[in-house]
Amino acid sequence: MSPTSTESRSKGRLEAFSDGVFAIAITLLVLEIAVPIVKGDRLLGELWHERQMYLAYFVAFMAIGAVWMEHTALVDTLDHIDAVFMRLNLLLLFFCAFLPFPTRLIAEYVSDRSGERVAVVFFGLVLTVQILILFIMAEYAERHGLFGERLEDERQEESRGRYQLLPSVIFYGVAAVIGVFTPYFAVGLYLLIAVYLAVPIRTVTRALRRGS
Amino acid sequence: MSPTSTESRSKGRLEAFSDGVFAIAITLLVLEIAVPIVKGDRLLGELWHERQMYLAYFVAFMAIGAVWMEHTALVDTLDHIDAVFMRLNLLLLFFCAFLPFPTRLIAEYVSDRSGERVAVVFFGLVLTVQILILFIMAEYAERHGLFGERLEDERQEESRGRYQLLPSVIFYGVAAVIGVFTPYFAVGLYLLIAVYLAVPIRTVTRALRRGS
Amino acid sequence: MSPTSTESRSKGRLEAFSDGVFAIAITLLVLEIAVPIVKGDRLLGELWHERQMYLAYFVAFMAIGAVWMEHTALVDTLDHIDAVFMRLNLLLLFFCAFLPFPTRLIAEYVSDRSGERVAVVFFGLVLTVQILILFIMAEYAERHGLFGERLEDERQEESRGRYQLLPSVIFYGVAAVIGVFTPYFAVGLYLLIAVYLAVPIRTVTRALRRGS
Amino acid sequence: MSPTSTESRSKGRLEAFSDGVFAIAITLLVLEIAVPIVKGDRLLGELWHERQMYLAYFVAFMAIGAVWMEHTALVDTLDHIDAVFMRLNLLLLFFCAFLPFPTRLIAEYVSDRSGERVAVVFFGLVLTVQILILFIMAEYAERHGLFGERLEDERQEESRGRYQLLPSVIFYGVAAVIGVFTPYFAVGLYLLIAVYLAVPIRTVTRALRRGS
Repeated sequence: MSPTSTESRSKGRLEAFSDGVFAIAITLLVLEIAVPIVKGDRLLGELWHERQMYLAYFVAFMAIGAVWMEHTALVDTLDHIDAVFMRLNLLLLFFCAFLPFPTRLIAEYVSDRSGERVAVVFFGLVLTVQILILFIMAEYAERHGLFGERLEDERQEESRGRYQLLPSVIFYGVAAVIGVFTPYFAVGLYLLIAVYLAVPIRTVTRALRRGS
Repeated sequence: MSPTSTESRSKGRLEAFSDGVFAIAITLLVLEIAVPIVKGDRLLGELWHERQMYLAYFVAFMAIGAVWMEHTALVDTLDHIDAVFMRLNLLLLFFCAFLPFPTRLIAEYVSDRSGERVAVVFFGLVLTVQILILFIMAEYAERHGLFGERLEDERQEESRGRYQLLPSVIFYGVAAVIGVFTPYFAVGLYLLIAVYLAVPIRTVTRALRRGS
Repeated sequence: MSPTSTESRSKGRLEAFSDGVFAIAITLLVLEIAVPIVKGDRLLGELWHERQMYLAYFVAFMAIGAVWMEHTALVDTLDHIDAVFMRLNLLLLFFCAFLPFPTRLIAEYVSDRSGERVAVVFFGLVLTVQILILFIMAEYAERHGLFGERLEDERQEESRGRYQLLPSVIFYGVAAVIGVFTPYFAVGLYLLIAVYLAVPIRTVTRALRRGS
Repeated sequence: MSPTSTESRSKGRLEAFSDGVFAIAITLLVLEIAVPIVKGDRLLGELWHERQMYLAYFVAFMAIGAVWMEHTALVDTLDHIDAVFMRLNLLLLFFCAFLPFPTRLIAEYVSDRSGERVAVVFFGLVLTVQILILFIMAEYAERHGLFGERLEDERQEESRGRYQLLPSVIFYGVAAVIGVFTPYFAVGLYLLIAVYLAVPIRTVTRALRRGS
């Protein structure tokens, strides 16, 4: 499955289309935050009362942001893409574009204990599947030589990336299960995992190494 | 109608604008899925009850995804574009951007037998027209020499792509007619056709040939 | 006001940002088409009844599409952009992004004679201003040497483009005034003007000349 | 923290993703303008009555537009980006994507004196934080050598940019505080600051210098 010139050129459009979907999904999230309908003098209290909704918004934003960053890191190191990778990518985008729905569910059922539980678990499962597909994409790229003849070093970086992806799949899955019992705690865990995915471990380790 | 440098440069913006419209149309679909308004303890059952809506969402997502992939394959092999191709492209985008409307119709009339029928046929007709325009775009590109002086091989690949487009037009048309009688079955057919369009036949054949 | 390297590089991002806004504005239009809430057996009639709304959608889509095509033609021929051009561009985007609002107005007041009149005139004024700003942008580019040292031929092409822009401003303005008396007729005129803007006169003339 | 080739390449995708989010946030704003539901013969008066809402829309549009222009100016002068800069950028996008929410708040509480006050202050705080993050990004880029080995002149231009950013942070903050007492006045100030950010001081000074 050697790359033809056509396939190589497609990488630019895969990035453009993916960036578009990520950008829209992340920006649509704001539409899910309901404007409170109260008398003006009670607005401040109501906005404060809705603080859990802002948290859900922030978690969803960071979750998509983390996926975008991992996606950028992965596709950047690729030499070319092939037709299967393109379909896996479409599947990833499907779950990214779907995330505003469970976010709206959480926003809608924020004060309904048993509904909240369903919404939080649903949200967590979508996050789990997202990272799982990213992991499969990285594995596929490795096995089918999409990294090309680049510097060995880069491929190792990427492997590092995958080592961060696999635990995240497990963490998200476990957090979703925890959500069945304590939804609040699960949402906190989602945030931690997104931060973990977003933290540039390479940069941090290098900075620490330099410091010692 | 030889290409001027202006027209050649426009290809990049045609791709950027098209990718934008595809990305937004595909991501807006999620807004059509209604959040159920029930007591929290009945939420799980209600979400399960709405499974047909998720199916419609998935079908619409895959239909736009397939058009995007065929569009990428076509425009990638072009040497340059001309003013007429640009207008045909705008027409294609018109029907892509319109797809969220019949999707919402299906979501709205999911439990209303006779409304569902209208919605499903409407949805199918929009899909048919989309692929028809793509086919006309490919034909036009061939006749007006937009493929340029590229490798003969690539042009043949592209012809292969058109052979996949023409049956899809017919399949979608037939499925839309079937939708008049059995809407559910038609939606299943839409999904199959989108998968057929999305499957990288070239890669599969090559893999099979290699295997034998 | 000679171009610095910074300003030249900005052209790519001006295109990317503009393409994004055009693509989103054109795709958001579909959200303005209301899904009829009737019994399923009356859905077909209701959809037919709403045909004026589809027309308004189509006109708005084509109006933004025409602006996008003129914008592409203009910016493509530029050698570089400067800070003032960037602000004029932002103003153009402001009115493009605003167009979904008068479109929604038309959709909402489609069966209310006197409301329709207001909506149609409002819609026409926004279209007029859009093309007016495009015309000012082209004039500005000419006067401040943004076309650079390109082939004389291209600059003439561009002048041709401007000759198409100025009548369109007047046509849209006149159509908006006509809308005060006969809204339907005005909407038809808007469509004609968008088609006039979208028609590649250069290609057509060349084809005719070749034919003779 | 020397740039690897991977990090340099990421700059293109950071720009694409950011342009996407800016473009969507700025275009979503129009959805916040409510269509008046009145008899058609009172529509014109109602549209006039809502003029404050258009002002809020215009201010929000210009505020995002100004951030986009400053972002373009900053990232353009960078030689490369690093992992921390990418996270700061994500945080900036978070607040940009969030802006439609306070805009909707203003639109909703436009005729409710005490609600308006809360909405206007909220809106102002989000604007303040946006410019503050931009300022931090510019500072970070300077300290970590992201400007690279470019012409000294460009770095000075950029410093100029930062001198414009810091006062804007303070101005927005002060305007937000003023909003507690006189919301209308504060909205006017927001507009002035956005215009100040958007005005190309460099070009203006150069033009004046040339004139003298």
